[in-house]
Amino acid sequence: MKKTILGNKSSIHPYPVTILGANVKAKPNFMTLAFVGIVNANPGMVAIGCGKRHYTNAGIKENMTFSINIPSADMIKIVDYIGCVTGNKEDKSGLFKVFYGKLGTAPMIEECPLCLECKVLKILDLGGFDDVIIGEIIESYCEEKCLTNDMLDIEKLKPFLMSMYENKYFAIGDYLGKAWKIGMDYKQKK
Amino acid sequence: MKKTILGNKSSIHPYPVTILGANVKAKPNFMTLAFVGIVNANPGMVAIGCGKRHYTNAGIKENMTFSINIPSADMIKIVDYIGCVTGNKEDKSGLFKVFYGKLGTAPMIEECPLCLECKVLKILDLGGFDDVIIGEIIESYCEEKCLTNDMLDIEKLKPFLMSMYENKYFAIGDYLGKAWKIGMDYKQKK
Repeated sequence: MKKTILGNKSSIHPYPVTILGANVKAKPNFMTLAFVGIVNANPGMVAIGCGKRHYTNAGIKENMTFSINIPSADMIKIVDYIGCVTGNKEDKSGLFKVFYGKLGTAPMIEECPLCLECKVLKILDLGGFDDVIIGEIIESYCEEKCLTNDMLDIEKLKPFLMSMYENKYFAIGDYLGKAWKIGMDYKQKK
Repeated sequence: MKKTILGNKSSIHPYPVTILGANVKAKPNFMTLAFVGIVNANPGMVAIGCGKRHYTNAGIKENMTFSINIPSADMIKIVDYIGCVTGNKEDKSGLFKVFYGKLGTAPMIEECPLCLECKVLKILDLGGFDDVIIGEIIESYCEEKCLTNDMLDIEKLKPFLMSMYENKYFAIGDYLGKAWKIGMDYKQKK
């Protein structure tokens, strides 16, 4: 093994850039979130890590609902901004046009092309800096212009990415091939 | 709300493309994994969703260890291949050069530029198709050629992405700006 040891870092590269939404004291609040991943299909479930001291966490615990909003790359400045300021000091409720879905208390962002409405299944304290929150995706809401044949088209959605530690944002790049297809005929060296 | 309703789908876009490794019956086994995200910093923790019937799950439960390996885009064919065939039917132990770290039972892939060695903290059955597994990252191992000033450089790492449902792989694209900086001066419309 000739690799360099980097320590116990959180290094899944790349990170998706999303916006976490929750009602806090009956007002919508939003923060940038990269600690997020899908952990179940049918029904969709999402796991997030969210710093215990964050203003948003109080709202998630109050309502047991939250939203994950996927912004497009042209929203980069406002997305970064809401990761720079806390709802504790600044009212972020007027930054976006907000809508609600089936759960009634998970604020979602009209300007984001894709919004996931979630109810909390588990909140775990595993001794780290973050609350680990697992939610079920109750409904997904997508801009029609981001669909191709009624299916989400990532090249129309134009989400963006983050590289942690170097703290850089990147766009989606070139199409490389079809999943469950491009490697189908790969032959194992015997 | 003028959005199209897509149902309770697992739609965090994009998904990182990773390889999940575990020893099953004392032999290394690997599968492609996109249901993965960081859920804690310091120590790094990762949450994954892995179909209960997968061969790999048995090994994770047996040893309570696993690895997350970040492949570079030039590995796309073999990465897709190991998502097409199950370890139940095909021995995948000879596909990569394997190394072990501190835990001794989490097989990692020499050919991948970044490898995360993980021990299981929780395995949750939330009633879905997948086991939801949360692991602590015990150590990270990185190719020296992917570092800049001792820090992971995503443009050298060249990981790749996936878009679920349309099942397409994409490269990392253009650099868009610095996180916690590009939006710092965004002013809220009053």
